[in-house]
Amino acid sequence: MTVPLAARSTVMGSDSLMSSFVLHPQLSRDCVHVGDLPLSRLLLLNDSRYPWLVLVPRRADVTELFELGPGDRSMLLDETCQAGERLLHLCGGDKLNVGALGNLVPQLHVHVVARSAGDPAWPGPVWGHSAARPYDEQTLSDRLALLRGDLAGAGLDEP
Amino acid sequence: MTVPLAARSTVMGSDSLMSSFVLHPQLSRDCVHVGDLPLSRLLLLNDSRYPWLVLVPRRADVTELFELGPGDRSMLLDETCQAGERLLHLCGGDKLNVGALGNLVPQLHVHVVARSAGDPAWPGPVWGHSAARPYDEQTLSDRLALLRGDLAGAGLDEP
Repeated sequence: MTVPLAARSTVMGSDSLMSSFVLHPQLSRDCVHVGDLPLSRLLLLNDSRYPWLVLVPRRADVTELFELGPGDRSMLLDETCQAGERLLHLCGGDKLNVGALGNLVPQLHVHVVARSAGDPAWPGPVWGHSAARPYDEQTLSDRLALLRGDLAGAGLDEP
Repeated sequence: MTVPLAARSTVMGSDSLMSSFVLHPQLSRDCVHVGDLPLSRLLLLNDSRYPWLVLVPRRADVTELFELGPGDRSMLLDETCQAGERLLHLCGGDKLNVGALGNLVPQLHVHVVARSAGDPAWPGPVWGHSAARPYDEQTLSDRLALLRGDLAGAGLDEP
């Protein structure tokens, strides 16, 4: 099989086909693209009430965590931990909530949310709680700049 | 520092202190002990409406995923994936929900729930949805036997 060079990408030193990765349209609608980590597309959920990131491994047709190969799995967890720790540091909060649900959007994606005692859904989960309250333009722009600046050291490529 | 031999345990070939791990009382109340995987205590949430496992790394004073060392982190993810895949295989379901929340119980624990379209909380999250409906004695005993038999190959030690 001939694979066009443009369809190849090297991650962790191994060639991987990522040409068929397309972000699920629901995630495109609900989120803003922060950048790409070595494995995952990093998104900010457009809900100003919670500092809320979503990591989507750039692999096609993956729904469950256990479907990822061991290398990807470990990289996803590292990126999740790093993003979560930085989010909590940058935006504050009392507890991270990390979840891979996918009942509505089957494409594998991991939520990382900095929760604060007293936030609208506290202590319940944020998923399904209430409609998002989008960021205003300036706050969104500031938050993106903050995240991009901070995560550049983690290998974040800006879009 | 002198460490009594009884307080040592070897996991992945490295000595680790686990003497001070004590399961959070809320998890003790809500769950049944299935057994111990190499890193995690494996629990079954006593709610007959959902096949629902909880993994608790046997490490003291850990609240966030990012506080685990790289070896533990990777092992926890492997155990989570393995438990989830087997749970889905054994009990059926359409989608796994995996989550580490901890808003109410700070001890790090990972939920692995086999969700089915049409289950009581579908498609919302199970957390905080409604009060648990405990298993009857026979169903609980059958489910524990099923899980223990199946996960013996994954290194599960029965309690």
